[in-house]
Amino acid sequence: MAADPFDALLDALRCLPGVGARSAQRMALHLLERDRDGGRRLANALAVAMRDIRRCDRCRNFTAAKVCRICADERRSSQILCIVESPADVLAIEAATGYQGRYFVLLGRLSPLDGIGPGDLGLDQLERQLAAGATEEIVIATNTTVEGEATAHYLREMAARHRVRVSRLAQGVPLGGELEHTDQSTLAHAFSSRQPMA
Amino acid sequence: MAADPFDALLDALRCLPGVGARSAQRMALHLLERDRDGGRRLANALAVAMRDIRRCDRCRNFTAAKVCRICADERRSSQILCIVESPADVLAIEAATGYQGRYFVLLGRLSPLDGIGPGDLGLDQLERQLAAGATEEIVIATNTTVEGEATAHYLREMAARHRVRVSRLAQGVPLGGELEHTDQSTLAHAFSSRQPMA
Ligand SMILES: [Zn+2]
Ligand SMILES: [Zn+2]
Repeated sequence: MAADPFDALLDALRCLPGVGARSAQRMALHLLERDRDGGRRLANALAVAMRDIRRCDRCRNFTAAKVCRICADERRSSQILCIVESPADVLAIEAATGYQGRYFVLLGRLSPLDGIGPGDLGLDQLERQLAAGATEEIVIATNTTVEGEATAHYLREMAARHRVRVSRLAQGVPLGGELEHTDQSTLAHAFSSRQPMA
Repeated sequence: MAADPFDALLDALRCLPGVGARSAQRMALHLLERDRDGGRRLANALAVAMRDIRRCDRCRNFTAAKVCRICADERRSSQILCIVESPADVLAIEAATGYQGRYFVLLGRLSPLDGIGPGDLGLDQLERQLAAGATEEIVIATNTTVEGEATAHYLREMAARHRVRVSRLAQGVPLGGELEHTDQSTLAHAFSSRQPMA
């Protein structure tokens, strides 16, 4: 770590994703010249977040409490459970849909080559939830990568053991997307999965 | 300030220039999921920088010491003084040129409409430096905006009073730039200031 406080700040800002030498410099000068209060507030918010934010006991999403806000919300249905890879996916689904069920956050995906197995994703914990019986449907919303698909397959088997219905986010051509700019595998999948029109 | 540590972190990250809601979320999740050490280091670097970084007694650049590294460097010439608007300009000149003189950082530019006068830019302090007699040349490197030009004019008058030579960064078509993409006033200036070729 650099001994000079200015250099140390430049170094440290570069741990933020997408921040290179030039943006780090712009950020440091902005805070020093125009927003020291903002800089102090950010220092404090970071320290508190790094210290206090943990995984929700129930869904593994980030929270500073024992259970997160979604899990603590009694109005949400426990019959339906959406399984995602990351907290960002929860935020995206909350922002885009009117989904009123609950989540389970894997914080990763199965990847035997990287030594990431079911235990690392809390799948034992998820299995206990399914065994408890409140869940009637799981919505698999893992990414459509090879590892995301392998994880989806594992989840489908687990759900079958507990007689829980399984659905998966629809895959196909993005809305508003142009066919000529859609990648080949998406287009091939969308074509072979074409739906009859009413 | 948001009560929830995660929301507070998102809020606080947005005080960084160029960081909107989506990047704040990406940064927060990155630190929480993959780099808590980096997050703690950044919290600490920010707190130290906001508390300790002040203006150099001699050149007004940011430093945590009484005088900055450049002013403390006895090998640099005190005969030539480059006057810039901001610490970012010092960093840019240091990175791009082999300049071995000293700097004076205005931390702004004359702007009567905004109530920014000579005292706000340390110009009284600069005048005392020129009166002390070590400076033989000032290089004016203020921006080529209306206010930067007004500041340059003020500096030229001050230098004349103390019989100090004045130079200004050359203005013209940027190297590697294409004429058709050069703005009209730059092109007009470059044309009327054309230089004889050897
Ligand atoms: Zn939760
Ligand atoms: Zn200095």
